[in-house]
Amino acid sequence: LVKYFDRSDARKMLKERKYDGYKNYYGVDLLVAGSAQYKGAALLATKGAVASGAGIVHLSSAKEVVDIMPLYLPEAISEIRPGSYSREMLKKFDAICIGPGMGLDMDAYHCFIDVIENSTCPLIIDADGLTILSNNLELLDRQQRPIILTPHLGEFKRLCDFSGDDQLTEVAINFAKEHHCILVLKGPHTLVTDGKHSYKNASGNKAMAVGGMGDTLAGMMTAFLGGHYQAIEAAILAVYIHGFTGDLIARDHYTVLPEELSKMIPHAMSLIGQK
Amino acid sequence: LVKYFDRSDARKMLKERKYDGYKNYYGVDLLVAGSAQYKGAALLATKGAVASGAGIVHLSSAKEVVDIMPLYLPEAISEIRPGSYSREMLKKFDAICIGPGMGLDMDAYHCFIDVIENSTCPLIIDADGLTILSNNLELLDRQQRPIILTPHLGEFKRLCDFSGDDQLTEVAINFAKEHHCILVLKGPHTLVTDGKHSYKNASGNKAMAVGGMGDTLAGMMTAFLGGHYQAIEAAILAVYIHGFTGDLIARDHYTVLPEELSKMIPHAMSLIGQK
Amino acid sequence: LVKYFDRSDARKMLKERKYDGYKNYYGVDLLVAGSAQYKGAALLATKGAVASGAGIVHLSSAKEVVDIMPLYLPEAISEIRPGSYSREMLKKFDAICIGPGMGLDMDAYHCFIDVIENSTCPLIIDADGLTILSNNLELLDRQQRPIILTPHLGEFKRLCDFSGDDQLTEVAINFAKEHHCILVLKGPHTLVTDGKHSYKNASGNKAMAVGGMGDTLAGMMTAFLGGHYQAIEAAILAVYIHGFTGDLIARDHYTVLPEELSKMIPHAMSLIGQK
Amino acid sequence: LVKYFDRSDARKMLKERKYDGYKNYYGVDLLVAGSAQYKGAALLATKGAVASGAGIVHLSSAKEVVDIMPLYLPEAISEIRPGSYSREMLKKFDAICIGPGMGLDMDAYHCFIDVIENSTCPLIIDADGLTILSNNLELLDRQQRPIILTPHLGEFKRLCDFSGDDQLTEVAINFAKEHHCILVLKGPHTLVTDGKHSYKNASGNKAMAVGGMGDTLAGMMTAFLGGHYQAIEAAILAVYIHGFTGDLIARDHYTVLPEELSKMIPHAMSLIGQK
Repeated sequence: LVKYFDRSDARKMLKERKYDGYKNYYGVDLLVAGSAQYKGAALLATKGAVASGAGIVHLSSAKEVVDIMPLYLPEAISEIRPGSYSREMLKKFDAICIGPGMGLDMDAYHCFIDVIENSTCPLIIDADGLTILSNNLELLDRQQRPIILTPHLGEFKRLCDFSGDDQLTEVAINFAKEHHCILVLKGPHTLVTDGKHSYKNASGNKAMAVGGMGDTLAGMMTAFLGGHYQAIEAAILAVYIHGFTGDLIARDHYTVLPEELSKMIPHAMSLIGQK
Repeated sequence: LVKYFDRSDARKMLKERKYDGYKNYYGVDLLVAGSAQYKGAALLATKGAVASGAGIVHLSSAKEVVDIMPLYLPEAISEIRPGSYSREMLKKFDAICIGPGMGLDMDAYHCFIDVIENSTCPLIIDADGLTILSNNLELLDRQQRPIILTPHLGEFKRLCDFSGDDQLTEVAINFAKEHHCILVLKGPHTLVTDGKHSYKNASGNKAMAVGGMGDTLAGMMTAFLGGHYQAIEAAILAVYIHGFTGDLIARDHYTVLPEELSKMIPHAMSLIGQK
Repeated sequence: LVKYFDRSDARKMLKERKYDGYKNYYGVDLLVAGSAQYKGAALLATKGAVASGAGIVHLSSAKEVVDIMPLYLPEAISEIRPGSYSREMLKKFDAICIGPGMGLDMDAYHCFIDVIENSTCPLIIDADGLTILSNNLELLDRQQRPIILTPHLGEFKRLCDFSGDDQLTEVAINFAKEHHCILVLKGPHTLVTDGKHSYKNASGNKAMAVGGMGDTLAGMMTAFLGGHYQAIEAAILAVYIHGFTGDLIARDHYTVLPEELSKMIPHAMSLIGQK
Repeated sequence: LVKYFDRSDARKMLKERKYDGYKNYYGVDLLVAGSAQYKGAALLATKGAVASGAGIVHLSSAKEVVDIMPLYLPEAISEIRPGSYSREMLKKFDAICIGPGMGLDMDAYHCFIDVIENSTCPLIIDADGLTILSNNLELLDRQQRPIILTPHLGEFKRLCDFSGDDQLTEVAINFAKEHHCILVLKGPHTLVTDGKHSYKNASGNKAMAVGGMGDTLAGMMTAFLGGHYQAIEAAILAVYIHGFTGDLIARDHYTVLPEELSKMIPHAMSLIGQK
């Protein structure tokens, strides 16, 4: 059974911020994103995370991205991707997202393996991370922690031997069950499933089909994942709020740009939170 | 006969976005624009394209532009202009625009020839591209696809041996007929003609006479050309919406800056689309 | 006799834009401003000019400024300051402003002399340009064109042997008369005088006493000077509109930042122009 | 006795700007902030100072920060941190803030000692400056001028041998008394004390627990400290206005980003100033 997840569901799930919350309480998160070639994806993902209420957001990226990030978002802390990630370096994070715009070269591959093997916190794998994963799917089976995958249809087809789309929902649910992960299958009415519980998103609209939207979503999800939500809650809440924010903008805009969507997130979350 | 193209014409022509549209559906477009000397033109053209609803916008430009584009518009994908463009590199695009701020040096010239000869999708030639074309007008005659030229009066005079402006409209229509192209002759009441059908634009105003306006227009036109419009529709629709957006701003602004115009495009298109 | 210049005076002086105005009609202007050390001044002055309706604004500056200008203001065209300026290079401009943030080193000095000697269009000398001029005041006497000087009190004291401020207005009027220039003596109720006609500005407020305000004003004045106004009209109109725009903002802001003021100029000019 | 400091207290304390105030009147301030690694902190602190009405704000920072500052805030003047600071270099400043994002390496340490020993104006020590100070607390005892320390709880624990938080307020008051400084102990209801007078801040909210908020506050406080307020007034006024501005935003935003807070400061101060 797949449940539609709507505004009243989001309102119930969204937590009020604690009165005496210090910034670390709201999550110290890491995005491994961006590359010399794809800089914008890292910027958009990081803004998605900061706008959604993450306490502190670290970005690990190419020098070209690190150089410009402060101008785009002075609130984030960005560092050049190290040659390798140790357990020590990764243990301080409450959530990690790997993949947006990170590229597919050998460095990206090694970085991906490193982060998967040396981190223990909840993890989101997105975009190029999914492409790397699709050739190394066995990595999922050794995981003891929540893992969220966020493919669109094309990426999902690379993850499993799937053709035709009549029974897409069933295939997706089975994939999540088999690989012990949370699958976020992006598209109109994005599906979120952990194999047992499944949701279809009631928000979102056609004006949002623009490059960069997925990067923003990945950042938002990271903020929730590091901010005291269960992994499946973080997944469906991010998907819903992303679409809801786009719906607000699309009321009087023919297209919704990711950058504009990010700016509207704090207000959209305030609307959702109103009892 | 030249028809005035007004808001009701634009409303009929502007398509609703498809419910299940994926971003690629709305066009994968290429702008060949900007140079070390003229960086701003590339930024403005790219923002015009993204704001008008293009699915994915690629910019091919000088390193100096590529370095800064993510800060200006993280949604775009920018790449340094290669030494040459192969058919393989260009075949994925739904529309190409070449010219804004690209300069007139030998590199620009070779790049222009390369793109004309190795691409097959609908093409817009603007600004410096028109100056290069004016010395190589025979290139137009070998084209099997829609070509849009967007000269202002000075650039048009370089394209054809024209002096005096009493019969400007007739000369323009004949030029389009002879060279099998769509001509967008920019000025007050911009003319759009393919030699058979001709339109004069009813929108636009005197507050828009500012450097950079043409770059924004070229980007907008590229988005429509790659987004399931006929070439002449893309041309007149871009011209109309560009002017209409400027009219909205000019209601309470003495001047209209291209940057501000781009920000207003999604809202302006929403207004036009309201039945 | 000194006349107060107020909103009704500005309304009468401000010209409607011509219906068929091409961008060049509204002026091709040059700002010689900024240096490796003082980058912000060049940015603010250029934005002041573009926002006030200049057709095309060129900035001649240090590489460090040229590199970042497109991100700040893609509408402007910026070029690295050449070793020397020839008559040929300068003859296309309708107005030039020299001085904001240009520094006081030997390069700045040579650049200043070059521009003074090889340009013939109306000229504004501001900030560091005034400091250089104060040691070379004889340069003024050879000028056959309108020259506007824009000192604040400290800079004015360097221009003439003046101490005490009881008869400041008289001293200023005599200075303008003697040196055949237009003097804009900045302060509360800025004085504009050509020695014959003198105005005190009725707009402006205490929230505008912030670094960078003078740079914005210099840019605005350049736009009017290149846009079909007499030099003294350009001076007093820029001063009035600068103050008027600041007054609009100060209604509900404790401080007025130059950047915010520039954004508001097109709207402020629209308000002034309403008959 | 600790007094709650609320809107009516802020209204009484906030000074109207003088009619004939020149920009220098409102303070020439120096921020020693930022490093190659932590660039954003310097940007946010500088914007906090400029937005709060400082006359001229200088930033002394790493080259990486100086390069980008004009794009972020053209009103500020930024210079690369010199090898050492002389008395001569520092004597022109009305207030100095040292610490945000400056790092903890040997260069930062030497810079810190230099600035403490060679400046004589009122001084704020924040963030990394506090960490350096905690190993050199004797530096405080030689000071003849107002010093403000702005630790959060974790930083305060490094400054004194304190564990448990039952009597936190008392410990803080005693610390200020013993070290002849003004202590701003940040948290919910931030405490400001000089050992004799103590205030708890009535403004601020849970949506403000985001990285970078402290940097904005440090900049704001610098503006007041250099702008004709007593040191304890500057401290409590900055804390109150920072929280009040955040409260305005949090009315309809789930999170408050420092960047957005800075933009709102001039309006918030205008509201507070209304009699």
